[in-house]
Amino acid sequence: MTRAVVLVSGGLDSATALAIARNQGFDCYALSVAYGQRHDVELDAAKTIAKAQGACEHRVVTVDLSSFGGSALTDPDIAVPEVPTSGIPITYVPARNTVFLSLALAWAETLGARDIFIGVNAVDYSGYPDCRPAFVEAFTELANLATRTGVEGERFVIHTPLIDLSKAEIIQRGIALGVDYGKTISCYQPDKDGRACGKCDSCRIRREGFASAGVPDATEYQA
Amino acid sequence: MTRAVVLVSGGLDSATALAIARNQGFDCYALSVAYGQRHDVELDAAKTIAKAQGACEHRVVTVDLSSFGGSALTDPDIAVPEVPTSGIPITYVPARNTVFLSLALAWAETLGARDIFIGVNAVDYSGYPDCRPAFVEAFTELANLATRTGVEGERFVIHTPLIDLSKAEIIQRGIALGVDYGKTISCYQPDKDGRACGKCDSCRIRREGFASAGVPDATEYQA
Repeated sequence: MTRAVVLVSGGLDSATALAIARNQGFDCYALSVAYGQRHDVELDAAKTIAKAQGACEHRVVTVDLSSFGGSALTDPDIAVPEVPTSGIPITYVPARNTVFLSLALAWAETLGARDIFIGVNAVDYSGYPDCRPAFVEAFTELANLATRTGVEGERFVIHTPLIDLSKAEIIQRGIALGVDYGKTISCYQPDKDGRACGKCDSCRIRREGFASAGVPDATEYQA
Repeated sequence: MTRAVVLVSGGLDSATALAIARNQGFDCYALSVAYGQRHDVELDAAKTIAKAQGACEHRVVTVDLSSFGGSALTDPDIAVPEVPTSGIPITYVPARNTVFLSLALAWAETLGARDIFIGVNAVDYSGYPDCRPAFVEAFTELANLATRTGVEGERFVIHTPLIDLSKAEIIQRGIALGVDYGKTISCYQPDKDGRACGKCDSCRIRREGFASAGVPDATEYQA
C-alpha cells in the first residue's frame, strides 16, 4: 500500500479527510499537533478517530504556538467570539497550517510517503488565509524545493479533498464512508468533557452543516 | 525600531546573520528551535550569542523532529560522516528549515514584524536543499499567502544576507561586526562541553573558512 500522512485535528473535516484517504487505498499515518490549543480535548478525539478510521499509526507532535500568542485559540486572555465577525477572525492562529504542513512534510519524507492529506475547506469555513487553494499550491511548490525527495525528482502531493465542498457535502461524504461524527470535536471552547459550546463560529458552521445535509447532529452540547 | 525575527542556531552563520540584522538597525527577536538535535549544546551557544549580539529577546521553541528520525543529526543510531560524501548528506534533517521558518513566521506575525532573517548559505554549505535561493523565494511566496498580514496587503521579507557569500566572506563580515566566533558551535557532534570534533562536514567547512579568511580559528577542538 502507498503511505500517506494525514493531518488529524480531532474535528469533523480532518476525520472526513482521513476516511477519504483510506477509501482511496492509502496506508494512513495520522499526525496531530499539540500546539497549545485551548481545546485540547481535540487531541483525545484525534486519537479515537485515527483508530476508528483505520490509521496504521497516530502520532502527536508538540510545538507550543501558544508561546507566541496572538489568537483566541491559544491565548486564554482572548475570548472566543460568539457572534459572527467580518474579516479574518481572532481565532486565526498565525502560521498554523504552515507549521502543521511542515511537520507533515518532515514525517512524510522519513516515511517515504509522497502524499499528504489536509482537511482544509474554502467554502463553509472561518475565513482563515491558510485554508485557501493558493496557499496549498504554494506549499506544494515549497515542499518540492525544500526536500531531498524534491531534489531527487519525485513530487509531494498535498491532497485537499474537501477544499471545494460545503460543510453539508463534507458530512454527506463522511457518512457514506462510515465516519462517526459523534467522536469529532469542532468547538473552539469545549468543556473538559468535550461538549460543544454551540455558540462559536465553528459550532455554528457545523450545526448548519448537519441541518443542511439532513443528517442528525450527533454533537454533544453543553447544557 | 523595526522588529525582525532572527533564527539563531548557535552556529557561525546565524550568529553572523544576527549581527547583520542588528547592524541594519532591526530590533532583533532571536528564535532557536530545540528539535531534538544531537548537538544540543548549540542551544546554550544560541543563548550566549543572542545576548552578546544585542537581541532584545531570545526564545527557544521545542518541536521534536527526532521523533520522525531520518537524519544523523536527530537519530543517534545514524553516524555523522567524517569524510565528505556526494549528494545530499545524511545530516540533512527532513523539512528542517521549512519548520524553522514556519515558526519564525508565526512569531513574526504575532510581534508585528515583517522581517525574518535566516543564515542560509548556498556557497560553502553542506548541500541541503532547504538552503537554496529557490527555497527561500518559495517560502516568501507561501508566507504572504498563509497569513493575515499577507491577506491585508503587507509583505513578509525573508532576509538571507549570507546566501551568496563564501564561508571566508561570512567570517570576515562577522569579524567586522564584532562577532566572537569562539562562542559559536558548528560541529555536528560536539562533546558535552561544546568542543568540536574537527572531522565532520560542518567542522571541515568552518575550519577552511577561517583559514581562507586569514582569521585565527577560535574553535575549541576535542583532544
